[in-house]
Amino acid sequence: MAGSEVVLLDTWVSLFGMRVRIALAEKDVHYERREEDLTNKSSLLLQMNPVHKKVPVLIHDGKPICESNIIVQYIDEAWQNNSPPLLPSDPYLKAQARFWADFIDKKIYDAGTRIWRRKGEEQEIAKKEFIDWMKVLEGQLGENSYLMGKSFGYVDIAMVPFYCWFYALEKIGNISIEKECPKLVAWAKRCMERESVSKTLPDPHKVYEYALELMKKLG
Amino acid sequence: MAGSEVVLLDTWVSLFGMRVRIALAEKDVHYERREEDLTNKSSLLLQMNPVHKKVPVLIHDGKPICESNIIVQYIDEAWQNNSPPLLPSDPYLKAQARFWADFIDKKIYDAGTRIWRRKGEEQEIAKKEFIDWMKVLEGQLGENSYLMGKSFGYVDIAMVPFYCWFYALEKIGNISIEKECPKLVAWAKRCMERESVSKTLPDPHKVYEYALELMKKLG
Repeated sequence: MAGSEVVLLDTWVSLFGMRVRIALAEKDVHYERREEDLTNKSSLLLQMNPVHKKVPVLIHDGKPICESNIIVQYIDEAWQNNSPPLLPSDPYLKAQARFWADFIDKKIYDAGTRIWRRKGEEQEIAKKEFIDWMKVLEGQLGENSYLMGKSFGYVDIAMVPFYCWFYALEKIGNISIEKECPKLVAWAKRCMERESVSKTLPDPHKVYEYALELMKKLG
Repeated sequence: MAGSEVVLLDTWVSLFGMRVRIALAEKDVHYERREEDLTNKSSLLLQMNPVHKKVPVLIHDGKPICESNIIVQYIDEAWQNNSPPLLPSDPYLKAQARFWADFIDKKIYDAGTRIWRRKGEEQEIAKKEFIDWMKVLEGQLGENSYLMGKSFGYVDIAMVPFYCWFYALEKIGNISIEKECPKLVAWAKRCMERESVSKTLPDPHKVYEYALELMKKLG
């Protein structure tokens, strides 16, 4: 894939964009990153993702790929000769990896977002659900180093961007994620030892400020 | 994979279960289908899908695979020597196929469900959105025979079960899907020429009765 042109339409605080940045770093793919202003989306973004009109979009030799988990699978397949492989090769383990990435989107992202978007009783429900689902994921981690076993891969990439939002969720929701899910926090710190992750995730305090501003706007 | 044991936990009216039945039929996989009573779920279902507690679950030699699109990808990979392939082999086309299957779940399923679950203005919004998203999918179909081109595959399998719900949606929502999306209805009829589809999809009148009963229960 030498000489191919890779552009990423992204925004710094997007968990989904971070997934793609980590996957590209793991595969040592050189690319141009373009920061999008989501209040004034570029015509390129609207043209490349006319259905969802969202970041991230990976544009590989002019062809767009959308939806973060789909992009990460694409990166794994398009640059399959670049190590490390991100998904397991065994069909059953591959299905398990897809299951957990899907779980993170459907359950953890959903409940986590409601912690800072809702108030009162709805926020309390979101907090409880968030911790419950985090514990389910912690059960999947078990005593392993990474979410699918010994190697860092697809499911870790799907989850680890949330780590830079933990501080905001803890402050806004008045919860302690480390107290509730110590193994998951230890896992996140382990992931942060990788340059692909530590260089991608923004400062949690900046994320917190961003969340506070957005909460003000949303009322 | 000769001699392997395949069990499908399913319920007759589930769009997601139908996807798995079609994929198994396409790949000529022999399996035992167990009908679940969703008001009284079996202990096997709860044990095999403890996270979502939903059908369909494919149990292959004792190991569960959950979430319909993930199951269909698993079937394609685990029985890769059985023709036809369900997903394209090219990474970019594979990403496109995953994008459209995901689109069907996020947009068409969501809006379609709201047509019969909501009332008044919310139902009107759902009807408009459903038709709008169906037209987007019709745009993807274009002049092709199938949703990804010349061959029946993964995206067709994700979408075609909706066809047996069209009658219910038309009656309940007072819409004409054929008038709005004639090419998509022609595509569905083309899919119905395949035994894997025609033998899987239940009678639309039975589906309509089921939807009416459920609407009564939900008030």
